[in-house]
Amino acid sequence: MPAKTDLSKFNCSLAQALAAVGEGWTLLILRDAFLGLSRFGEFQQSLGMAKNILAARLAHLVSHGILERDGTEKRPLYRVTDKGRDLFPALAALMQWGDRWTSGGKAPMRLIDENGHAIARIRLATRRGPVDPRDISFRPGPGATLRTRHFMTRLSG
Amino acid sequence: MPAKTDLSKFNCSLAQALAAVGEGWTLLILRDAFLGLSRFGEFQQSLGMAKNILAARLAHLVSHGILERDGTEKRPLYRVTDKGRDLFPALAALMQWGDRWTSGGKAPMRLIDENGHAIARIRLATRRGPVDPRDISFRPGPGATLRTRHFMTRLSG
Repeated sequence: MPAKTDLSKFNCSLAQALAAVGEGWTLLILRDAFLGLSRFGEFQQSLGMAKNILAARLAHLVSHGILERDGTEKRPLYRVTDKGRDLFPALAALMQWGDRWTSGGKAPMRLIDENGHAIARIRLATRRGPVDPRDISFRPGPGATLRTRHFMTRLSG
Repeated sequence: MPAKTDLSKFNCSLAQALAAVGEGWTLLILRDAFLGLSRFGEFQQSLGMAKNILAARLAHLVSHGILERDGTEKRPLYRVTDKGRDLFPALAALMQWGDRWTSGGKAPMRLIDENGHAIARIRLATRRGPVDPRDISFRPGPGATLRTRHFMTRLSG
């Protein structure tokens, strides 16, 4: 990947999507980890980030348990944890969005399973079937604070 | 929502997820637009962002065609476009991840369809069924540049 500071310059729908939604580098590091990269120099070469920023982002991902640090002190390995791997659907959904809206339908990268079958478009659904995003509404959940409940009551009022 | 500069302080799994992956405010503005907010003051009250930053983020979303600006010059309305609405699966996937990993399984907000049925957990699948993220690999797609192809060839080599 080219050493660019502008995410939109990358040939990667995820980068395009992140540029479009105004986000940063962290999910791209995770993408690279999914791609099999594990060394500092590999991430650095792939993403062209400044070393101090990359080091900070890697430390951030490790501190949040999304990557884990392994290997030796001098030559660490960064591996995706279960928590990190569980971000794959969100990352794939952003990447697919980028494929549709910022890459003109021409995906720079495809995702396939072990038999070569393409990962299907990620859609919202209930157990009964697909749902149009226009028909979705938000409700307070079991973790809602009083403030969140008031906020959502005002919305539906 | 409280006027906090730290995303992780919000009672919202999306904010938690964005804090964990190191991302920012833009998807939260989109969440609010999905929630039905459309006025500058409503976003400002909900998110507690500095007005100049909110104005810049809204302009960014409008310039990328994710929101469109309507209403009068003095009293604009911001509405989600088709392109913006198509980010709902990615946003929901990030929110669900936050529910699992940063909100201790207690979702601050639930997503339901018009009949009150819960939106199901978003998983990766092919047409043949669910896929374990461990079994997914990346291949160059139709939009891959020569550089991307070389990058991916090195990875699988």
